[in-house]
Amino acid sequence: MDHSPARSTRLDSYVDRYAARTAGMTASEIRALFAVASRPEVVSLAGGMPNISGLPLDVVADSLTDVMSSRGSVALQYGSGQGDPQLREQICEVMRLEGIDAHPDDVVVTVGSQQAVDLVTRVFCDPGDVVICEAPSYVGALGVFKAYQADVVHAEMDADGLVPDALRQAIAATRAAGRRIKFLYTIPNFHNPAGVTLSAARRAEILDICRAEDVLVLEDNPYGLLGFDAEPMRAMRADEAEGVIYLGSFSKTFAPGFRVGWALAPHAVREKLVLAQESATLCPPTFSQLAVSAYLTDHDWRGQIKSFREMYRERRDAMVTALGDLMPATCTWNVPAGGFYVWLQLPEGIDAKAMLPRAVTARVAYVPGTAFYSDGFGSRFVRLSFCYPTPERIREGVARLAGVLQAEVELRETFGATAPSPGLVPRSRYDGPATDLT
Amino acid sequence: MDHSPARSTRLDSYVDRYAARTAGMTASEIRALFAVASRPEVVSLAGGMPNISGLPLDVVADSLTDVMSSRGSVALQYGSGQGDPQLREQICEVMRLEGIDAHPDDVVVTVGSQQAVDLVTRVFCDPGDVVICEAPSYVGALGVFKAYQADVVHAEMDADGLVPDALRQAIAATRAAGRRIKFLYTIPNFHNPAGVTLSAARRAEILDICRAEDVLVLEDNPYGLLGFDAEPMRAMRADEAEGVIYLGSFSKTFAPGFRVGWALAPHAVREKLVLAQESATLCPPTFSQLAVSAYLTDHDWRGQIKSFREMYRERRDAMVTALGDLMPATCTWNVPAGGFYVWLQLPEGIDAKAMLPRAVTARVAYVPGTAFYSDGFGSRFVRLSFCYPTPERIREGVARLAGVLQAEVELRETFGATAPSPGLVPRSRYDGPATDLT
Repeated sequence: MDHSPARSTRLDSYVDRYAARTAGMTASEIRALFAVASRPEVVSLAGGMPNISGLPLDVVADSLTDVMSSRGSVALQYGSGQGDPQLREQICEVMRLEGIDAHPDDVVVTVGSQQAVDLVTRVFCDPGDVVICEAPSYVGALGVFKAYQADVVHAEMDADGLVPDALRQAIAATRAAGRRIKFLYTIPNFHNPAGVTLSAARRAEILDICRAEDVLVLEDNPYGLLGFDAEPMRAMRADEAEGVIYLGSFSKTFAPGFRVGWALAPHAVREKLVLAQESATLCPPTFSQLAVSAYLTDHDWRGQIKSFREMYRERRDAMVTALGDLMPATCTWNVPAGGFYVWLQLPEGIDAKAMLPRAVTARVAYVPGTAFYSDGFGSRFVRLSFCYPTPERIREGVARLAGVLQAEVELRETFGATAPSPGLVPRSRYDGPATDLT
Repeated sequence: MDHSPARSTRLDSYVDRYAARTAGMTASEIRALFAVASRPEVVSLAGGMPNISGLPLDVVADSLTDVMSSRGSVALQYGSGQGDPQLREQICEVMRLEGIDAHPDDVVVTVGSQQAVDLVTRVFCDPGDVVICEAPSYVGALGVFKAYQADVVHAEMDADGLVPDALRQAIAATRAAGRRIKFLYTIPNFHNPAGVTLSAARRAEILDICRAEDVLVLEDNPYGLLGFDAEPMRAMRADEAEGVIYLGSFSKTFAPGFRVGWALAPHAVREKLVLAQESATLCPPTFSQLAVSAYLTDHDWRGQIKSFREMYRERRDAMVTALGDLMPATCTWNVPAGGFYVWLQLPEGIDAKAMLPRAVTARVAYVPGTAFYSDGFGSRFVRLSFCYPTPERIREGVARLAGVLQAEVELRETFGATAPSPGLVPRSRYDGPATDLT
């Protein structure tokens, strides 16, 4: 039997047997580039992988040893579909940092918050239902909505996050078209990819709109504790318990490898999410949950988050300084107050996706803006991640990108439109982290 | 805010907003009983939890320490959506025990094989599509098919497993009704719940039928290495690579707590499964995968499986001996050659579900047969698990069940039909493993 991807992808004998939703499951062509971008000589400003080099591996290892010695037979066994009760209590303690007063009985542990997005969509969305998302929005969530054949309606953001009038218009236009809105998907803190944060006044106004219009809010908050300058902002869920499903994750505040996230939902919804979780996995990984629980018990996790914040702030500074020093004046970008991402606007007429192969050839990678829109918009934008490379590498990557951009601009001045992309590496050869999804 | 389940379940303000599939997501009322059945004084013959007390926790702990010291920064980071390459090679080694010659590139690691069933169904099934299943079939798979609004058509089994003529008839009748068959879901080895094994001759015949009728086979094989008397049988996938998706799991041969299972699929299908996995979780838990990989490397896993087989055989013997000694002559059951389950037929007129509350009151629990059919059939059947309790407890549990049965028979002789069930414990109070699903 010949296993070469070439043969298999040339000929899919199952193509007419898949579910309709599977037609939407295609590898984005940019994924192919990560086969190249993952090479050490390439500075990847594409990935959303947290830099966990600051984690005390010995402390984590000790926690794992404690788990095995104190609760080994529990850690290796099936657990509750809802998740470990002790961990759910600790999750409520974590959420208290954002003003949330929650009951552990309303928390469902998930396989990373990605699975929480999947389960909430599974529970709520029929094909053709509408999810309102910020423009741009998290590529991994857009992928889930597409997989459930839900349609995305984008609402604009500005420097203060989602624009209330844009939300009102999106709701009105969607309903005027006779479409059903299932929820608003929003990332209020240090937005992925836009880097902006929803202001306190806006949070209250968005909640008022959603109450008045009876629209459920899906508050996705993986970065909320990673602010650089101030204390965590008050979560939307803190001021609205019945109309908000809140999603949290330990992937950015501890480590992604355990895949432990959670959903906090109104009780009736929580019951559906548990049933959906049991159907999807029987139960989230018990060992992972007990490992995270032991880490939270044994270690100064608040202090660890503080050191993560300082490390990421230094990298944010390195990136915005490099952008200011090296980018053409015709580029614009924001200065994020936390999280992982800078959203860069390219000079008019430059296509970020068409430019990507040339950037990777110049040993720098990024995610083109079109990945973050459901409608093909965003070709002039780029998501730059400062979370993973060192400050020195970030500056080097920005310098390489500036060089590629300069060449693009000159190319365009000479020949007009951007040249087409060369052929890409077959995605099936890429075996590394799905970094562009995070 | 009042978090009491009573209030919330009385009143679900979201009831008219869920997806159509969510209407099928309801807690089976028997789940409620596990709140009671999980009490120590109850002998649970209901759960499918493996008995992992034989695992050397110190060896497992050492493997985890090795993972942290040698690959800690990898184990705590995001990984490939397809799963760790080294683990996928080891999985191919495990499958070789059943005659499968597979390439690691065609393996997708999943969050237990339950997630593999979920992802395969996600990729193939539209609402109204048909999945052919044995009668009875695994309750957790039936739940997945229902969650994707696929319809189940059952085909009879006998002592040699799925009956070829029954499969032919099921295919013909389904197609005559103009329905689309997406795949045959089968558990060839030590069937859950029926305990039977598909004979070698039948495997060839079933494969011939599926080739001739162009029906994909989903071979679910969590118990194949847990035979009591002979070497593992040759997997169906070993003789048919293009028409079979094979599912495996480490939950019964090592430990369920890491939630590591896998799917081996034709290359084109594998690519869809990876995309579905990335959408569902970004990647399966990296730490879990490296932990399983280290265990397979460091430990005599074949010897461990051998000791599991001996332990489960002793329990199988304890159960069938007790059944022979204590059950009314009007009961019948099979003697499984491996796995976890005995399928018990009750005397005519006895309803296993109606009897369950009385059994639990008598401190013995089981899963009523109706859970394993999509069509309400099976009221006269009971799944008895011998995997978890000790031989002494198994005999005690069978004795209690025999007493309850005797009382039922007498009750019925006196009053006719079985009395209705009393009220059940609210499921939302149950926080233990979803044992009836495994």
